[in-house]
Amino acid sequence: MPVPDPTALHALQSHLLAMPPARALQPSVEGFVAGRLRLRAPLAANVNDKGSAFGGSLASMMTLAAWGLTTLQVEQAGLDAEVYVADSQLRYLTPLREDLLVEAWLDDDRDWAGFLSTLRSRGRARTTVHAQVLLGDGAPAATATSRYAAILRRG
Amino acid sequence: MPVPDPTALHALQSHLLAMPPARALQPSVEGFVAGRLRLRAPLAANVNDKGSAFGGSLASMMTLAAWGLTTLQVEQAGLDAEVYVADSQLRYLTPLREDLLVEAWLDDDRDWAGFLSTLRSRGRARTTVHAQVLLGDGAPAATATSRYAAILRRG
Repeated sequence: MPVPDPTALHALQSHLLAMPPARALQPSVEGFVAGRLRLRAPLAANVNDKGSAFGGSLASMMTLAAWGLTTLQVEQAGLDAEVYVADSQLRYLTPLREDLLVEAWLDDDRDWAGFLSTLRSRGRARTTVHAQVLLGDGAPAATATSRYAAILRRG
Repeated sequence: MPVPDPTALHALQSHLLAMPPARALQPSVEGFVAGRLRLRAPLAANVNDKGSAFGGSLASMMTLAAWGLTTLQVEQAGLDAEVYVADSQLRYLTPLREDLLVEAWLDDDRDWAGFLSTLRSRGRARTTVHAQVLLGDGAPAATATSRYAAILRRG
């Protein structure tokens, strides 16, 4: 997968901050690590009544990371499409009491070339993206497996 | 299921607004309709880049409704417990371009009496809660099936 350039990552950051419910989480685009898109957000903006990260914030940050990863691929391919989450399976494994570090990556059985080819030829395509929120020791605090759909905009 | 009194609903509203990432969604506790807890939130605080409701906001509002329903049951039983979401299956069915109306209810195969009895005797219990975001015509825009765990606080 081609790693997007800093301009594309900066545009993604602006895109996230333009959505009020995303902006409230104070996400920042950290970049790519081993082919995975990483986002961060401060615990203070995402804390629940128990002093740990709110489950809805974990879900939202994983959604933003997976959506952002898919959107970057579409944009890098020069396509203009809307990207939607279709469904998601979430697991909350352990309370998180530190800042949120989230990464998203394409399912091993999928490839971006096939997704983009289908999007070009049929005007829509689906793929499966994984995301997780990492603890400081690298173990996951929460995981998500989601299907994303892209639909070409009619120009 | 006993319907909580207005004081309990007001306390739940305060509880939600005390969490920064929940407060950002501007949720309000509407009350119970046919045994289902209903919450509302304005679209403006939850809108995405496409002018419809952000998937993360739908996930968060369904989490808050299901968590709130479970928390009310625990409190009404006079128990002091922390309530966690353990896992969740989410489906996004159609874009929502109106204010968010969310309802949560206990799975048909479960009952609160059994959940509370297990919580009392074993100090922890799990149950399954459904939630949905409703369109104006009553059809679901998104659905969630989630497992919630309660763990008694050590007094």
